[in-house]
Amino acid sequence: MAQMTTSVEYGIHCLLWLVVADDTPLSSRDLAELQGISPSFLAKIFPKLEKAGIVHATGGVRGGYRLARAPEKISFLEIVDAIEGRKPLFDCQEIRGRCAVFGGKPPAWATGGVCSIHAVMLRAEKSMRDTLAAETLAGVAKSVGRKAPAAFPHDIRAWLEARVSKRGAARKRAAPS
Amino acid sequence: MAQMTTSVEYGIHCLLWLVVADDTPLSSRDLAELQGISPSFLAKIFPKLEKAGIVHATGGVRGGYRLARAPEKISFLEIVDAIEGRKPLFDCQEIRGRCAVFGGKPPAWATGGVCSIHAVMLRAEKSMRDTLAAETLAGVAKSVGRKAPAAFPHDIRAWLEARVSKRGAARKRAAPS
Repeated sequence: MAQMTTSVEYGIHCLLWLVVADDTPLSSRDLAELQGISPSFLAKIFPKLEKAGIVHATGGVRGGYRLARAPEKISFLEIVDAIEGRKPLFDCQEIRGRCAVFGGKPPAWATGGVCSIHAVMLRAEKSMRDTLAAETLAGVAKSVGRKAPAAFPHDIRAWLEARVSKRGAARKRAAPS
Repeated sequence: MAQMTTSVEYGIHCLLWLVVADDTPLSSRDLAELQGISPSFLAKIFPKLEKAGIVHATGGVRGGYRLARAPEKISFLEIVDAIEGRKPLFDCQEIRGRCAVFGGKPPAWATGGVCSIHAVMLRAEKSMRDTLAAETLAGVAKSVGRKAPAAFPHDIRAWLEARVSKRGAARKRAAPS
């Protein structure tokens, strides 16, 4: 059976950091370093999430990405569709009309409505999408939060604050005096 | 979202012809010509269905493939797994332990149990697989049968009989006298 790409995994992990970061804007480089993944790879994912209205980008030294909506309002389905694009599970080629007995002229009954095989695949796809639509970023953040010690979100925010300050200081040093 | 390959579409259409053919063995070439698809492409699919115990192959001039079980006992899930192999929907790379705050030494709470993101994807995959497991070849054959005129299965069997006879005659002509 087919797979989702690694982009979905990387994207969702980093969106969960945006939940922890609360309203602090983070660059895709901040997020990549926090998560221990390739910054150039992540830099291709976040514009897709922005385009889909899942994150919001601000510019400037302290700029970066924030969630565009409350995490309770962001479903896994939206995230997956934003990153992968909406490709069907099964790409029906409508070969039912090609039966040799039809001699190149398939009758209306043979090609009318949805192909019965395609219909099964559409139902299977709907089951999967319904499950993804019912899961939110907030729900998964809570599930991760239950495993972590109480100090963990503070450790993360301290790491991020230190990093954002360092970024600001580096820019100041680089600026003409 | 990811896709199933064309092999699944071709395979299932041809398995439906084996339901109509009843117990007449058909070669993958017979099936490909009946369905109007590439014989060499189909010839790669049927050995997978045989290996999975979905079809049974017999040799000889009148040999070919037959369903190995009643079509009521063949689920769409088995067919998809036989053709595509059982790949997970989401191939978790376990990046949760790579958080920079852990400094290369993730604590047990961070990597214990199933990753919460992976857990969502496993549920989504299960929904899809459950739907495919509930659909049988017989069910879809009946659904196609309801659309077709009563004479259609006879037309198909007549086409197949003519083809199988022609195959036998060609072999006889090719044999030394």
